[in-house]
Amino acid sequence: MDFTSDNAAGVHPAILRAVADAAGPEPAGYDGDRFSARLDDAFSQLFERPVKAFAVPSGTAANALGLAAVTPPFGGVWCHAEAHIEVDEAGAIPFYTGGATLMLVPAPAGKLTVAALDEAAARRRGDVHQVQPAALSLTQATECGTVYRPDEVAALAQWAKARGLKVQMDGARFANAVRHLGCAPADVTWRAGVDLLSFGCIKNGGMSAEALIVFDEALAQSIPVRRKRAGLMPSKGRFAAAQLLAMLEGGLWLEIAAGSNAAAQRLAKAAAGRLLYPVEANELFLHLNEAERARLRAQGFSFYDWELAGPEAARFVIRWDQAETAIESLASALASL
Amino acid sequence: MDFTSDNAAGVHPAILRAVADAAGPEPAGYDGDRFSARLDDAFSQLFERPVKAFAVPSGTAANALGLAAVTPPFGGVWCHAEAHIEVDEAGAIPFYTGGATLMLVPAPAGKLTVAALDEAAARRRGDVHQVQPAALSLTQATECGTVYRPDEVAALAQWAKARGLKVQMDGARFANAVRHLGCAPADVTWRAGVDLLSFGCIKNGGMSAEALIVFDEALAQSIPVRRKRAGLMPSKGRFAAAQLLAMLEGGLWLEIAAGSNAAAQRLAKAAAGRLLYPVEANELFLHLNEAERARLRAQGFSFYDWELAGPEAARFVIRWDQAETAIESLASALASL
Amino acid sequence: MDFTSDNAAGVHPAILRAVADAAGPEPAGYDGDRFSARLDDAFSQLFERPVKAFAVPSGTAANALGLAAVTPPFGGVWCHAEAHIEVDEAGAIPFYTGGATLMLVPAPAGKLTVAALDEAAARRRGDVHQVQPAALSLTQATECGTVYRPDEVAALAQWAKARGLKVQMDGARFANAVRHLGCAPADVTWRAGVDLLSFGCIKNGGMSAEALIVFDEALAQSIPVRRKRAGLMPSKGRFAAAQLLAMLEGGLWLEIAAGSNAAAQRLAKAAAGRLLYPVEANELFLHLNEAERARLRAQGFSFYDWELAGPEAARFVIRWDQAETAIESLASALASL
Amino acid sequence: MDFTSDNAAGVHPAILRAVADAAGPEPAGYDGDRFSARLDDAFSQLFERPVKAFAVPSGTAANALGLAAVTPPFGGVWCHAEAHIEVDEAGAIPFYTGGATLMLVPAPAGKLTVAALDEAAARRRGDVHQVQPAALSLTQATECGTVYRPDEVAALAQWAKARGLKVQMDGARFANAVRHLGCAPADVTWRAGVDLLSFGCIKNGGMSAEALIVFDEALAQSIPVRRKRAGLMPSKGRFAAAQLLAMLEGGLWLEIAAGSNAAAQRLAKAAAGRLLYPVEANELFLHLNEAERARLRAQGFSFYDWELAGPEAARFVIRWDQAETAIESLASALASL
Repeated sequence: MDFTSDNAAGVHPAILRAVADAAGPEPAGYDGDRFSARLDDAFSQLFERPVKAFAVPSGTAANALGLAAVTPPFGGVWCHAEAHIEVDEAGAIPFYTGGATLMLVPAPAGKLTVAALDEAAARRRGDVHQVQPAALSLTQATECGTVYRPDEVAALAQWAKARGLKVQMDGARFANAVRHLGCAPADVTWRAGVDLLSFGCIKNGGMSAEALIVFDEALAQSIPVRRKRAGLMPSKGRFAAAQLLAMLEGGLWLEIAAGSNAAAQRLAKAAAGRLLYPVEANELFLHLNEAERARLRAQGFSFYDWELAGPEAARFVIRWDQAETAIESLASALASL
Repeated sequence: MDFTSDNAAGVHPAILRAVADAAGPEPAGYDGDRFSARLDDAFSQLFERPVKAFAVPSGTAANALGLAAVTPPFGGVWCHAEAHIEVDEAGAIPFYTGGATLMLVPAPAGKLTVAALDEAAARRRGDVHQVQPAALSLTQATECGTVYRPDEVAALAQWAKARGLKVQMDGARFANAVRHLGCAPADVTWRAGVDLLSFGCIKNGGMSAEALIVFDEALAQSIPVRRKRAGLMPSKGRFAAAQLLAMLEGGLWLEIAAGSNAAAQRLAKAAAGRLLYPVEANELFLHLNEAERARLRAQGFSFYDWELAGPEAARFVIRWDQAETAIESLASALASL
Repeated sequence: MDFTSDNAAGVHPAILRAVADAAGPEPAGYDGDRFSARLDDAFSQLFERPVKAFAVPSGTAANALGLAAVTPPFGGVWCHAEAHIEVDEAGAIPFYTGGATLMLVPAPAGKLTVAALDEAAARRRGDVHQVQPAALSLTQATECGTVYRPDEVAALAQWAKARGLKVQMDGARFANAVRHLGCAPADVTWRAGVDLLSFGCIKNGGMSAEALIVFDEALAQSIPVRRKRAGLMPSKGRFAAAQLLAMLEGGLWLEIAAGSNAAAQRLAKAAAGRLLYPVEANELFLHLNEAERARLRAQGFSFYDWELAGPEAARFVIRWDQAETAIESLASALASL
Repeated sequence: MDFTSDNAAGVHPAILRAVADAAGPEPAGYDGDRFSARLDDAFSQLFERPVKAFAVPSGTAANALGLAAVTPPFGGVWCHAEAHIEVDEAGAIPFYTGGATLMLVPAPAGKLTVAALDEAAARRRGDVHQVQPAALSLTQATECGTVYRPDEVAALAQWAKARGLKVQMDGARFANAVRHLGCAPADVTWRAGVDLLSFGCIKNGGMSAEALIVFDEALAQSIPVRRKRAGLMPSKGRFAAAQLLAMLEGGLWLEIAAGSNAAAQRLAKAAAGRLLYPVEANELFLHLNEAERARLRAQGFSFYDWELAGPEAARFVIRWDQAETAIESLASALASL
C-alpha cells in the first residue's frame, strides 16, 4: 500500500497500447513520423488555439527547456520557495538557461500571491548589478496539493506581465488541477496569461513522455534546436508522440485524474482534522506525530515524512492505479488513529 | 524502399515485449525499479568487468553526458571533423560541458589516426591562452561506415593517455562494429583504453533508450546528478532499463546487427566499383552521378546525397528491418546502372 | 560630503606612483613581467605560507573565479541571504560556475552562524534530485559592517569541512576587518579553515586590481585558464600586480583601513542610539526616519537608504579619503538630530 | 631588441598622464564618474554616428562580450581558422555565449573571403541537428598582419547579412589597420556593415583598457548586465575610461600606429624576399630557416617561431615603443642574412 510517489505507479493500458501501435517503421526518424506530425494539432484543439507542442522525456526537461526559451543567462525566475524546479530538479534551470537564478518566494500552502511577490520584489533594486527578472513560474497543482483558480493565475500573470516577465506553468499534475477546477484547460493557462506549460503525463498513467506547450508561437522559435542540443529530441519520436496523443484521446488524461482526485477526497474526509493544506489534487499533507506515523507504517502504508511542511508532517500521494482497497484501508487507519 | 536512416525503422518485437512486461507498478519511481537495479550487472557481464550503466533517451544525450563527466568547461575534445558530435548534435557537447570546444581533425574514411592527431596537435601550443585538451572521442562504427580494429583503438587511446586525455567512444552503431570485428565488446573498448561508451540501441531495433557505459567507476561520480539536472533521468526508469536489458538478453543486439551488416555486404558486392569507403557496418557510401541518383530514386529508392563525402556521393543506410526484397531490388538496380 | 560608496573615493598616491613606476617595457606581456613575478611571494609572506595570488579587475571577478574553481556546475554555494555575490553581482557565480546555485541563509547582522546553516541544511535532502552543496562563502567584513572573529570563522569552516565543502571568503573589505581584529591575516583565513580569499584593494584606496588568493595550491590549478578565458588576464599584467604590491608594501593596506575604521568609530559614537548593527569596519547602518534622512541630505550629506535593513534604515560608508571635516560635520549633524 | 609581442611594450606617456589626472574622487563608483560619462560621445564622434562604448580590461573580454550579445548558446560564429578568438582566447567565446561554436574557415594570409565562406557554409545543412550560425567575426588587422579594405569588409558583411548574421570585428590592431588604409574609422566598420568592434588600445600604447563599440544601440541592450556579471565592470570606471579618452584625444591612437606601421614597412623592405604575407600593419611574418633564426637570436633579437605559418616561419611584432636603433639593427641583420 504505497503512497510515496505517483512515479511508482504503472502505465495505463491505453498508453501501452498506443506505444505498441507505433512500433512499425515510419517515413522518417526524429519528428518525421505520423504521430509527431499530429501533436501540434491535438494540443491546439485541447487548448482552443494554435499552440506548439514538444514531447520531452521528463518534467524536469519540460520545465527547463521552456524556461530557457524565455529567460536569458543573466535572468531570474520568480518561483515558490518549495517549487519543484528549486527543490527537485538538481539545478536544471540554471543549466538550461546558462546560469539564470531562481528567485524564491515563500507563501502558504504552496501558492504564490501577488502580495508575496510584491514583498520579494521590493527587496530587489533591479539595476545592472542584479539578476534581471525574466519569468514567473507557477506550479499547478502546487507542491502542497493545492490548486490555483483561473482568477488567481490571472492576477499573478498580470503582475508578471506588468514587469515584462513571461509566465511558465509547471503542470506535472495539471490533469489533477484541471479536473478539480472543472474548467477548460485554456481558462487556467493562456486565457489567464500563461505563456508556457509543462503538460504532465507520466505521473498520471503515462510512460515516458511529457509535453511542453508553448502558447505563443514566437516564444517557441529557439526550442527545437535547444531540445536537440540537450539530447531531448528522440531518435524515434513516434513513441513519445503516441503516448501524448493517447493521453488526450477521449479525454483520458482527465478521466485518470478524476480517479486519483476522488480517492484523495475520500481520504481527506477520513483525515479531516489533520490536513495541513486543502486537498485539491491527488496529494494529502497530514499532521501525524511520530507514533502515528510509525503505527501507519506498521500497518503496511508507505509514505514520506515531509520536513518542508513541518516536523510532524507526512505526505500521501494517490497514484492513478492505487487499489480501492488500499484507499479504504488507509481511510480506516487514519480515522482510527 | 527507404535507405535514408536507421531511425526510420521500427522496433524489434522483443523490445516492445520488454516494455509491455515492465508496465506494472514498481517499488519506486526514477531508478528505484527492479529493471534499473539490474542494469549495472547486465552490462558488467557483457563487458567482463564492473561498469556503471546509465539509461538515456538519445545518443546525443549519451555522448554529451559522458564527455561532460571528463571535460572541464575550458577543455577540448579531439574528434573527427565529421563526427556526429560535431555535425549532428547541435552543439550538445559545448552545452553539457559548459563551453568545451570540439577540436576537429580531418582524416580519410572517417577514421582518426595517430598521424592525423599528431599533425593537429602540433598546431596547438597548449599554454594558458588555449583550450586545454581533455578527451578524445572516437565513433565506432564511424560516420563513414568503417570500423576501428582493437589495435587501432589501442593506438589512439595510447596517444590520448600519454597526454592525460580520457577516451570516449560514440557507439551509436557499436553493435554493427562489434559484429563486424567478431571480438569481445571489451576488446574494442576498455581493454583498448576506452573510458566511456555510448552504447547505441535505438538505431539497432530499439525504441527510446541508449546506454552510457562508464568503465572506470571514478569517472561516473558526477553523472547521476548531471543526468538528473539535464532532465534525462526518467520518472519511470523501468521502461528505459527494460529495453536495454532486452537488447542484451541472449545477444539480441548482435543478432540484429548481423542482419543489417550482412545486407550491407550484399549491397557492397553489387556496387563494388562505386564504394567510397570500405563497407564494414550497415552503411554504404557510393559514387553516383546525378543521373544515376535520379534513376534510383525514380525506381523508388530513398537515400541521402552526402555532400560531406563529395559532390557525387550518396549514403545508403541498411535498417535492421529492411525487407530482403528491398535489398535485392537495390542490389539489382545498382548492378544494372 | 559623500557617504554612498567607497568606490567613489580616489586612489591612494602610493598606488598611483606604483602604476607610474610600472609604465616602462617588460620582458613579456600578460603575466611575464617583473611585477607579476613577485605576486605569489608577496602574498605568501603576508599570509605566512605559500599561496597563489591572481590579479583580477574587480571583486566580482575575484569571487566568481575563486568559487568556480571549487564548485561544479551542479553545485551549490551556501552564503548569507544578503551577500554581495547574491545581491550585487548580477549572477556572476552562476555564470562562472556554469550554473551553480547560491543557497541563501538569513542571519542577523550579516553574519552566518552554525545554527543558521544547520537550519537551512536540514531543509535539503542532498540526493541526486538536488543541487549538491560544494562551498561556503563568507563576507569579511560583512555586508552589515560587522566582522567575523577567527573563532567564528573556524566554527563555520569546520561545519563546511565536515560536509566536504570548500570555504571562500569575500574580502572586499578584508583590510577593515583585519584592522578591526588586530590579528594576523592568516588567523582569520587559512588558519581558520578558509581556502580562497578575495583580497579587496579597490575600495581601500586601490585603482583597478583585486587579488584572488588561493591557500591550497591544488585548488588553484584551473584558475589560470579560467582567468584567461574570462578575459580577466591583463595583456600588460604589470599594472595590476604593481598596485597589489604597493598595497602590501609597508602594510599600506592596513594603514589605510585604520583611517576609515577610526572615522567610523567616531561616527558610531555620535549615532549611538541609532545603530542597527555593531560598527566594526567602515560602514554604519542607522535607524533614521524619513524626516531625519531628509534633514541630513539638506545639509549636504549623501548616503543610501537601505531597504535590506528595514524601512527606516540608511547606510553610511566611510571612504578612505573622507575629509576629516566631513566626518566631524556628520558627527555633529547626527548628534543634533 | 624584443620583437615578440606588443604587450611587452610600455605605456604611452599621455595614457599614464590621463590615469594620474583621474586619480581623485568622483561623484560615484562604477560608471558613475565624469570620464565614463563621456565615452559614448567620444566614440560617437570618432565613428560619425551614435554608438555605445564599453570599457573592458582585455581584448578577449571585448570579443567575448560583444559576440555573446549577438550569439545564442546554440549559435555559431564564422571566423578564420587562425583567429585570435580560436587560437588565443582559451575558449572565451564558448564561455561567454554559453556554449556557442567557432566555425573555422581556412583562408590565405589570414583574410576570409566570400569564396572561403561559401565553401565552408556548403558543408553545413543548417537544420535543427546543427549549430545555428549567428555571427561572422573578422580580425582587423588580421593575425597575419594583413588588412581588409572597406570593400572587402563590405562584401563579407553582405554575405553575413544575407544569412541573418551579425558582424563582429576583432580590432586588437584596429589602429594599425585604419592608419594603413587611411580611411575614416566608419568606412571600414559600420558603413561596411560591421555591428560590433573590439577597439584595441593596449597593444598600441595603452595600459589596461580596451573598448567594445556597438554601432546599433539595440544590440547593446544586454551588454551592461553581461559585463557586470562577468566581473568586467570596473569598480572605479574612471581609470579605464580616462585611458580610452586619452587615446582618442587629438588622434593619438593613429599617431602611435603610424610609428609602428612605418617601422614595419622599413623592415619589410629589408626582408623583401622573405615575406610570407604582405606587410600592412605592425607585424612581419618571414621565411627563415633554422640557422637564420639562430643567427638572429644570437645577435640579440627576440621573436617567435610561427608554426601556424609553416615550419620555417617567424613572426616579428613592431611595438609602438620599439627603439629606432633596434629597427635599424634588425633591418641590417635581415638584409645581411
